[in-house]
Amino acid sequence: MLDLIRSLVVEGKSKIVLLSLDGLGGLPHPDTNRSELETARLPNLSALAAEAACGLLRHVAPGITPGSGPGHFGLFGYDPLRYQVGRGVLESLGIEFDLRAGDVAARGNFCTVDARGLITDRRAGRIPTEMCVRLAERLRGIRLPGVEVFVEPVKEHRFVLVLRGRGRSGALSGRLSETDPQQLGKPPLAVRPLEPKAKAAAQRVNAFVAEARRRLADSAPANMVLLRGFDQLPKLPRFPEIFGLRAAAIAAYPMYRGLAKLVGMEVLKTGGTFADEIATLREHWAAYDFFFVHYKDTDKAGEDGDFAAKVQALERFDAALTEVRALRPDVLVVSGDHATPSILAAHGWQPVPVILWSRYCGADAVTAFNERACSAGSLGVLPAHHLMPLVMANALRLTKFGA
Amino acid sequence: MLDLIRSLVVEGKSKIVLLSLDGLGGLPHPDTNRSELETARLPNLSALAAEAACGLLRHVAPGITPGSGPGHFGLFGYDPLRYQVGRGVLESLGIEFDLRAGDVAARGNFCTVDARGLITDRRAGRIPTEMCVRLAERLRGIRLPGVEVFVEPVKEHRFVLVLRGRGRSGALSGRLSETDPQQLGKPPLAVRPLEPKAKAAAQRVNAFVAEARRRLADSAPANMVLLRGFDQLPKLPRFPEIFGLRAAAIAAYPMYRGLAKLVGMEVLKTGGTFADEIATLREHWAAYDFFFVHYKDTDKAGEDGDFAAKVQALERFDAALTEVRALRPDVLVVSGDHATPSILAAHGWQPVPVILWSRYCGADAVTAFNERACSAGSLGVLPAHHLMPLVMANALRLTKFGA
Repeated sequence: MLDLIRSLVVEGKSKIVLLSLDGLGGLPHPDTNRSELETARLPNLSALAAEAACGLLRHVAPGITPGSGPGHFGLFGYDPLRYQVGRGVLESLGIEFDLRAGDVAARGNFCTVDARGLITDRRAGRIPTEMCVRLAERLRGIRLPGVEVFVEPVKEHRFVLVLRGRGRSGALSGRLSETDPQQLGKPPLAVRPLEPKAKAAAQRVNAFVAEARRRLADSAPANMVLLRGFDQLPKLPRFPEIFGLRAAAIAAYPMYRGLAKLVGMEVLKTGGTFADEIATLREHWAAYDFFFVHYKDTDKAGEDGDFAAKVQALERFDAALTEVRALRPDVLVVSGDHATPSILAAHGWQPVPVILWSRYCGADAVTAFNERACSAGSLGVLPAHHLMPLVMANALRLTKFGA
Repeated sequence: MLDLIRSLVVEGKSKIVLLSLDGLGGLPHPDTNRSELETARLPNLSALAAEAACGLLRHVAPGITPGSGPGHFGLFGYDPLRYQVGRGVLESLGIEFDLRAGDVAARGNFCTVDARGLITDRRAGRIPTEMCVRLAERLRGIRLPGVEVFVEPVKEHRFVLVLRGRGRSGALSGRLSETDPQQLGKPPLAVRPLEPKAKAAAQRVNAFVAEARRRLADSAPANMVLLRGFDQLPKLPRFPEIFGLRAAAIAAYPMYRGLAKLVGMEVLKTGGTFADEIATLREHWAAYDFFFVHYKDTDKAGEDGDFAAKVQALERFDAALTEVRALRPDVLVVSGDHATPSILAAHGWQPVPVILWSRYCGADAVTAFNERACSAGSLGVLPAHHLMPLVMANALRLTKFGA
């Protein structure tokens, strides 16, 4: 499909803005039977919905809750079932670690083991982040033959391990089994190569774990490590080349900058607030054809299970929307990477409302931006990775297929 | 999928009429926010919609604008991404050239080159058709070893080149690159074979182009040719065999007759107007099970960007609908091969309204025939090639699948 799109792309001058509200979709509050979007006062989004084609995006498949990787791949036009990224890589992106092609990255937990080496707490009582920083420092000194070792603290008990091949011995494989048995009362597992050429990496990781056990012996409760989600940077078709767009990403949070960088978008320097992001958008308006703009607050409130905070985050976004419309994009999309219903306090599988506006979108009967209203929209329930072709068509950047 | 359908077909006496309004779908006029279909007075279509199942047809994929080939293949039940037809073939169909299996056809342009042979106008200033006829005559005299050469004028600067293998040397391949660099200031490209067995055809085409250059040297602005869209008649499963239908096509325009012939429908002789087409339908009513009836006016008006003319074309169609209903078909379908919104003045990617009427269709809440109303219909947004199985089911011509 990406090859088909690539073959149909024509040049244009149109400007495209994709506004992604992280964790946008929600569920009705049991007291009011109204979702976060149905509760919030959203005059600007409602007005946009009335002028636009609306629908629901399904990022992976019915019933499947997308992680941030698949959620964004879908929005960027990549089938998330075909293009995947491991947790080790995602976690590296999240701390803006300069992960390079060939590096093997894993998500690490500090954990607690008893005298027999059996796991008693997979998260070491969620040690404070400062302790995580100190312990990571201690592990960073570990030396392994032929590879550089990076140990980067993340938050609480979480860290990232990266092995980088040195010189000729360089080609590592990240196809490795995990050390986390996902159960208490068991010892951490040895890493096994999942393909023959992963043998060298498996040996290095097992040596790392053995040495980590020694170095952490006196640091209970965080006296051992668990490693999972081994992976390497995926080889992805580059977004700017597929779609023929000068593409920029504006995101205050590192993980989303990382995901955009993975597909070859240019990541613009911006501040920590949505107002900063919009200022960045305005400033670079002339230099790009496509802008991915990420809004984090909705997801944060949803993950916290804070219905009221999510409503407020939506209303703040709505207020800022006028500034984006003032730039007069040719195509304006509002959607998100997945649902984070407050009553779940976690990512959800529910499809996510989407607004697609352009001169040629063909407005439907939808006049409000929420789950129920958008389910009657003319876009129907759309696989998220079909959105970008529609966006391109609305930007008049695709020629017709077949004579 | 076609194999599945074929295996389920049962005999019947039911009559099916598929009315295709070329370029049916539209977009709201910016002044009124009403599309062509929403503006037109369509009492008969509205009445039919109220009794029928409605929806939207998507011919290729979201955002993909169908050419006439893919648009019709979809309507005929063939996945347009799987079954494709090149521009050379389509152009031949459009002039009712008797293209035969194995022929290699290309779309030709007369163009202008300067003294150094660089292209200065890809369309030779859109020379008048009479000049095209004279120049085609001149090129028709070109002789090439082992192949017959046909040069058929189309309109203005456009012509068709067909090479037909003679006798044993017959098997030509149409897998050839194009000579049109799609840029000014470049020379026409040599044709390259895209598979080894296309070598002979490439040599012949290059010899043709060299000789054409000589013969056109004094005929500026049309002093050179460009060739693209090389292809051969595709091998398609035959519609009458898949669906077990005696199938007839009624179309005033050659290209649509050609597309119907490609899938094995019988093409009925008819006059140049829609009234003629309906008279033909009435006349042959007893002899066929399935009628594809093509209405061109909607597309013509849309391509001209003439909103009012498209509205009138729709109203004329609506008036004629009663004559079709008077024949009492068992299944009546009204849809189109693609959208041609007047505000785009070109084919569009928007899904196309569809009405499917039969005694067993299960009417929905839709009571008007337009884009917005049909988007809420019970057929949803349906891949166009899924329509024929639904039609067959409504004609009680498919048995159940599985025991």
